[in-house]
Amino acid sequence: MSEFLHKDSIGPVVPKDAHLTFENGFLFENGETLPELNIRYETYGSLNADASNVVWICSPLTADAHVAGYYTEQDKHMGWWDSLIGKGKAVDTDRFFVVCSNILGGCKGTTGPASIDPRTGKPYGSKFPKITIGDMVHAQKALADYLGIKRFYAVIGGSMGGFQAMKWAIYYPELIDHLVVIASSPRFSSQALGFEIVARDVITQDPNFNGGDYYDKAIPAIGLANARKLAHITYLSAEGMEKKFKRAADQERHSHATDAYKTPFDMDLPLESYLRYQGAKFVERFDANSYLLIAHATDTFDLETEYGSLENAFKNIKCDVLNINLSSDWLFPPHESRKLTDAFLAAGKHVTSLEYDTAFGHDGFLIEGGKLGHSVARFLNSSFDDNLKPQVQTAFDGARAKTIVEQVIPVNSKVLDLGCGNGELLETLRKHKQVSGVGIEKDEQCILSCLEKGVPVLQKDLNAGLADIQSDSFDVAILNRTFQEVIDQVGLLREILRVAKKAVITFPNFGNWAVRMALCVHGRMPKSKELPYEWYNTPNIHLFTLRDFTRLCEAENLEIEKLAIQNKDNVSKLLTNFGFKNLGAEQVVAVVSRK
Amino acid sequence: MSEFLHKDSIGPVVPKDAHLTFENGFLFENGETLPELNIRYETYGSLNADASNVVWICSPLTADAHVAGYYTEQDKHMGWWDSLIGKGKAVDTDRFFVVCSNILGGCKGTTGPASIDPRTGKPYGSKFPKITIGDMVHAQKALADYLGIKRFYAVIGGSMGGFQAMKWAIYYPELIDHLVVIASSPRFSSQALGFEIVARDVITQDPNFNGGDYYDKAIPAIGLANARKLAHITYLSAEGMEKKFKRAADQERHSHATDAYKTPFDMDLPLESYLRYQGAKFVERFDANSYLLIAHATDTFDLETEYGSLENAFKNIKCDVLNINLSSDWLFPPHESRKLTDAFLAAGKHVTSLEYDTAFGHDGFLIEGGKLGHSVARFLNSSFDDNLKPQVQTAFDGARAKTIVEQVIPVNSKVLDLGCGNGELLETLRKHKQVSGVGIEKDEQCILSCLEKGVPVLQKDLNAGLADIQSDSFDVAILNRTFQEVIDQVGLLREILRVAKKAVITFPNFGNWAVRMALCVHGRMPKSKELPYEWYNTPNIHLFTLRDFTRLCEAENLEIEKLAIQNKDNVSKLLTNFGFKNLGAEQVVAVVSRK
Repeated sequence: MSEFLHKDSIGPVVPKDAHLTFENGFLFENGETLPELNIRYETYGSLNADASNVVWICSPLTADAHVAGYYTEQDKHMGWWDSLIGKGKAVDTDRFFVVCSNILGGCKGTTGPASIDPRTGKPYGSKFPKITIGDMVHAQKALADYLGIKRFYAVIGGSMGGFQAMKWAIYYPELIDHLVVIASSPRFSSQALGFEIVARDVITQDPNFNGGDYYDKAIPAIGLANARKLAHITYLSAEGMEKKFKRAADQERHSHATDAYKTPFDMDLPLESYLRYQGAKFVERFDANSYLLIAHATDTFDLETEYGSLENAFKNIKCDVLNINLSSDWLFPPHESRKLTDAFLAAGKHVTSLEYDTAFGHDGFLIEGGKLGHSVARFLNSSFDDNLKPQVQTAFDGARAKTIVEQVIPVNSKVLDLGCGNGELLETLRKHKQVSGVGIEKDEQCILSCLEKGVPVLQKDLNAGLADIQSDSFDVAILNRTFQEVIDQVGLLREILRVAKKAVITFPNFGNWAVRMALCVHGRMPKSKELPYEWYNTPNIHLFTLRDFTRLCEAENLEIEKLAIQNKDNVSKLLTNFGFKNLGAEQVVAVVSRK
Repeated sequence: MSEFLHKDSIGPVVPKDAHLTFENGFLFENGETLPELNIRYETYGSLNADASNVVWICSPLTADAHVAGYYTEQDKHMGWWDSLIGKGKAVDTDRFFVVCSNILGGCKGTTGPASIDPRTGKPYGSKFPKITIGDMVHAQKALADYLGIKRFYAVIGGSMGGFQAMKWAIYYPELIDHLVVIASSPRFSSQALGFEIVARDVITQDPNFNGGDYYDKAIPAIGLANARKLAHITYLSAEGMEKKFKRAADQERHSHATDAYKTPFDMDLPLESYLRYQGAKFVERFDANSYLLIAHATDTFDLETEYGSLENAFKNIKCDVLNINLSSDWLFPPHESRKLTDAFLAAGKHVTSLEYDTAFGHDGFLIEGGKLGHSVARFLNSSFDDNLKPQVQTAFDGARAKTIVEQVIPVNSKVLDLGCGNGELLETLRKHKQVSGVGIEKDEQCILSCLEKGVPVLQKDLNAGLADIQSDSFDVAILNRTFQEVIDQVGLLREILRVAKKAVITFPNFGNWAVRMALCVHGRMPKSKELPYEWYNTPNIHLFTLRDFTRLCEAENLEIEKLAIQNKDNVSKLLTNFGFKNLGAEQVVAVVSRK
């Protein structure tokens, strides 16, 4: 069984300790110092000759350095991101040298409040300095120096690990090539902070807390357990809890049910014993002071306040960014996470955003590690799941692309490709016109294809609008064969010409003679090469003719700079040559700009 | 200022006490008894001669009987639903006799755990029986008997008040005419229950709790305050909290900031003092035992488990139902609340459902009382806001309705009107064919118009499907001028013919000669009386011709029982007469059924 459980794992691993001393002590961001630091960490794989293969993992709040593999053959639990990290996995330990350390201020071997202060011979307790996310990163940097690491191929963090990863990129922009931020946000939401405040009060008001100096007495176990029960709910999704804890009378009690604690109000529900088990288990493995300190670092993390704006926080970073959010995460909700993407974009960085659909809530960033691996692997240019890589064919028309590339897009321009599909057009533009381009796409498989090509892409539904993109961010926006699929066309057109100086819009012409004939003669909704769908399943919900389009541009006071007509059919060609554009055009490439 | 504050209120009110004794004591659902009950209550307005004007309000968890008006001129706070109840308001006290009582087991004057047990001369404390929502209703029924009330024009409850209101309708089906359930659900979700469990543990593990017998000692204030802080977060929406508690450095601290309690981890945030203020205020006005008992009644309320199914729970009720949910409520989320609507419908009851858009979360049911009043007033057939009542004109075509009514709908049939607009068609059908009908509509103003006509209507977007409606629930489904607006037409068609035996579908014919000509000759997307929109803003996203429609019916193996063609234009009439239906039809009324 152990063999089966550990089969795909990197194998047995051993935590190591780095005893670090500093000339003037380890300096905290609040000005306090510690005389020395111990950092417990794990590494997998080997550092290559030029030290260019480092993947640095930042641990979330209550995890540890044990991110992959196992300690002994008897271990039932693997490292917490074993699904993502190992031989042949997304973070491939055959290629990368992976490092993860326990957090400063924690209780897993790295110096924290329960450690002995060498100056007093007693635990730090309440005397331990208040830490920040930045302090955690500085301690990790000291470890990296100790390990001889000069450069980071990637820094990866989920949840509070994402906070650290962003600080890494901000503090050491020259050293980092790739940044992966998973299920994170610019700061805790007020709702999340509210729960933090309650948890903090529940712990500090435990009569055993004693201001944090309890190491020689009874520990504040009740407070810590109750705080954990509360926090645990925020890690799950409502939907996930509903599935997991059905109220059926015949359901077995939770297998961990060993409630020492009972109240007269108990309903003998699996959920009651589950939460109490989570609380009790946490008390065994975590220290209240560490929890309060790390939580406080998380609570006070606020890039916007610290740097004036998110955009400003990111302006000096040099790395490419992959920002992943999780659909049912309400602790770091997708709309908060997307603010990071918007800010990276506004700061002119290469950023790809992707939302994974999961019912596991915030915990999804751990549970869905294998799923996240698909995008992480492509972002790291790894060979992971090569045989699984989807061959996404999107409606890419070489002739049309050629028209766009040759006639319309200036060299070195900034291009936004709305509905970019598998990224082929942007890749072509990058090659031939040296553009810096970003795509917008909603399909996950298409986004993976873009990642493979190194084309940055934002996951977004065009019908949700472009409000998050700053005005005049792009020279050209391309809307290739997508305009007829949009719900609010006038709204989108205005938005496009707010964020870009000009728009290239390609569309099938419903006014083409063959389309008209199909309806006129056969009395059925037309189907053609350009309009291949049945009337009841077509994504082309707002069809229009070339003449409709030019009238709309007039009404919107837009200038049509160019109008390229494309057709293959001979009658269409003839009609076009005779000047009957609306009858002749099968497809249209229009360049429009604000007058 | 007091005058201004109290201006729209019913005026000063006085709580009253009913001292009730019972032959064999008041019997709880768990078999225990209490020798006597005191019930504190308030009434507004006057009971009419035949006692037919009673509106009974059920109080939520921590509220009280003080639902409208004020006690003294100095009162800063009005009754908790003053926006809904009063002179000329939705629940008009000039017309209705309004009653609300304090909850059994509470601490506001009705007998509860802090009351003196006449048998011992001491507070009940831990000896107070475990109460159920049903017990609360039985106690209220005893009060109603005491007041000489024989019949209830309406029973209204929000949140846990909704639980009670539903139990009222289940226990006393013959006595109740209207049931209003606001921001409620069939039971607590697992997520909500999780928070309840944490709150319960936090209170009962307060060292002062002493198993519930603390009335002669220090009270479990810390536990109760922390439980309240937690609960309070669940009453707000994430969005609302974000707006209310911006993290701007220059923001004033919360005006209630009188934190006696401080921790070294405090961030001096308004949110911290706000939550602590909420906790402290609650300790002043509520008793821990009452909280635990009432919360326990709420936690154990579960109609599905109790009655085998929700449908079964509601099968004997006789009243019409209005079920309101709130968009940002995550304690009683809309999708849970809608399960009530589905069950009322499945049980064959007249139910109208409506979702109000609010950023106030669950608290919206209190804060948005005035807004809720619009639908409550119409449901109660009140004259409230008559001058504000919107005159909703929907595309109602008398000729078409006549065709449908005369030719298609059998007398006494059960009709589902998909996209029912202001309910005119269903009203007509009810008059002329005595149908029992339900509409589906997404627009709020249309739903208010339906409520005015007494037409039950479910708020739903047709694109969300009909999965919640049971198979074969209806004889006929009508899809009047809506089919071309649907995203997944084949899917909806299948769903319609699952829930109804036959479907009446009316649609504009894109194959009409004039439409064809518009495109053919003018090369623009056609506009006509039947197709009045511009191509870029038309809701008609999937247009089709009569021929397209008949082919789809063939492919779906549906029988076209009838096909009525309507046209006004002479050429169209001529074409139709010559048998060119697809050219001639301007609009089509088709009756289809499963073969």
